[in-house]
Amino acid sequence: MSLTKPATLSDVALMAGVSESAVSRTFTPGASVAPATRARVVQAAASLGYRPNAIARTLTTRRSRIIGVVVSYLQNQFYPVVIEKLSQTLQRHGYHVLLFVSDGHETGATVDDQLMDVMQYQVDGLVLASVTLSSAIAKGCRAAGVPVVLFNRTAPIEGVHSVASDNHAGGCLAAQALIQAGCKRIAYLAGLEDASTQIEREQGFKDTLHEAGIEVFARAVGHYSYERACAATRDLFSRATIPDGIFAANDHMALAVMDTLRNELGLQVPQNISVVGFDNVPQSAWLAYGLTTIEQDAQAMVTSTVEVLMQAIEADSTTAIFEARKVVAPVRLISRSTVAG
Amino acid sequence: MSLTKPATLSDVALMAGVSESAVSRTFTPGASVAPATRARVVQAAASLGYRPNAIARTLTTRRSRIIGVVVSYLQNQFYPVVIEKLSQTLQRHGYHVLLFVSDGHETGATVDDQLMDVMQYQVDGLVLASVTLSSAIAKGCRAAGVPVVLFNRTAPIEGVHSVASDNHAGGCLAAQALIQAGCKRIAYLAGLEDASTQIEREQGFKDTLHEAGIEVFARAVGHYSYERACAATRDLFSRATIPDGIFAANDHMALAVMDTLRNELGLQVPQNISVVGFDNVPQSAWLAYGLTTIEQDAQAMVTSTVEVLMQAIEADSTTAIFEARKVVAPVRLISRSTVAG
Repeated sequence: MSLTKPATLSDVALMAGVSESAVSRTFTPGASVAPATRARVVQAAASLGYRPNAIARTLTTRRSRIIGVVVSYLQNQFYPVVIEKLSQTLQRHGYHVLLFVSDGHETGATVDDQLMDVMQYQVDGLVLASVTLSSAIAKGCRAAGVPVVLFNRTAPIEGVHSVASDNHAGGCLAAQALIQAGCKRIAYLAGLEDASTQIEREQGFKDTLHEAGIEVFARAVGHYSYERACAATRDLFSRATIPDGIFAANDHMALAVMDTLRNELGLQVPQNISVVGFDNVPQSAWLAYGLTTIEQDAQAMVTSTVEVLMQAIEADSTTAIFEARKVVAPVRLISRSTVAG
Repeated sequence: MSLTKPATLSDVALMAGVSESAVSRTFTPGASVAPATRARVVQAAASLGYRPNAIARTLTTRRSRIIGVVVSYLQNQFYPVVIEKLSQTLQRHGYHVLLFVSDGHETGATVDDQLMDVMQYQVDGLVLASVTLSSAIAKGCRAAGVPVVLFNRTAPIEGVHSVASDNHAGGCLAAQALIQAGCKRIAYLAGLEDASTQIEREQGFKDTLHEAGIEVFARAVGHYSYERACAATRDLFSRATIPDGIFAANDHMALAVMDTLRNELGLQVPQNISVVGFDNVPQSAWLAYGLTTIEQDAQAMVTSTVEVLMQAIEADSTTAIFEARKVVAPVRLISRSTVAG
């Protein structure tokens, strides 16, 4: 199988139906270009796998030893922990992290513009944590031979690796813990509706409840945000009949649930309500919380991510691309003091 | 004033008294080199301002548009907040963050090896947050024309910029708040002893107490760590006479103090003890804490850091180098519910 010739600036201009100057300006930081033109250029460049500066840089070094990491969600302590471990593990392999912080978290926006920006740096690989990837950009990365690993997310996109926890099993464990505690009115606090973590955790939770002949008593959406989880908790617990158990789709929201129950609603955990989270962030172990939670093994996930990247970088790019690896890390229940019994 | 010629691999080998191959191996990720040899090469390279790959890369582009950011302390939520703001602000200027996570926090180790590593990437500037810089490396950066900004730290090193809060004034505000609350036995929980933040905050705190005719009742060291702050709190409050007020040198430790007082020692905040922190991290506003604290304006500090970097990068390097800027950001008291009265 022959490698295709890298796309040039002219190819992009032709496909986008714009001048070469417009393409050049699109990829020059700070340069002016009309939004509509920019959108066409980005789309064309993405589908062609065009990498600005690719020729000049490739002449001097085949590898940049830089891994682009895109995150959108540093408030949740899980991600700083991951960035620290990922950065240190890559450093031991002689690679470094070029960090991109997206603000698309709340909107669920894709990060296409940002990824084109990442590609200018001739990265050897990409890790996308907590962001959504479009098929067009994934295709561009494939064309450019840049391996992509989705971290803590999965997506049905050809050629894209993923490393995520067994979220479905985690949802099952959370349901079992609440059932065993004797909870009868079990609520679910959802994260971002379109996130794979949210969908899989909820499915596992509902499946296990269903097997026990229990339906979800109430459902609210906290969007993985502290403030929105506080608001959702007020809503859930202002009704005539309130839940006696709740599974929050991550710890960041579970801490908000506990704070709101105790400090605003005068309810006790676990005497009045049992609470289970997901992640096992450092604060879950803090004395103020002692949160019972489903642990994601951040170190194992990071180790797998780096392994997948290194194998993909070392391998012949034409074979590696179509053998996307889907790593599923095991989870476990960490029992602390927020579940009754 | 003429620009000096960039140092070559041969220059470094000559100065270090080693072979050129040893120098090459020192700067090849994963290559083997004896620790003693490596140390001599790093020292020689640092003092000469040698940048591996400098020639090949400089031929293709004068600027990398990459800013190296070194941090060592992501557990404290202040730093994830800073990284997010810094990354987004630099992105708006067409620059990106190459992130280096040091593990030298607890030991206070310098990050010389890591900085040499950063320099290989031909960064246009360096931001060092919560890490210690050696004079030798600072000299190397000057020789290489790479501006360095210390973030949330100050150091008496020639040619190095710094952006920090008015920590002395913050210490004064903390003392005033505890004095006004009527506290009589006022304790201080120190951070890392050699950090400029720790030294300046404590000095301001003691100066204001002293003016009011009060001496510090007790002092313990929490090293800016949650766990060590918990241990220090147990120690301080296991004595016959306990403090009725405490200033913790950052919020991360103040939250540990509150958790330990309430959950282990059965003491109430602020009924039994008033607590003041420093930073105003997001958790300080959480319902479980409502911590009264001295706010560092992270956005203002980040904006200043980027301004200083951009000016230094744009300016003629020979003039900019010797006009190091020392930016001091104002602080203010955020009154919540952990101080009596």
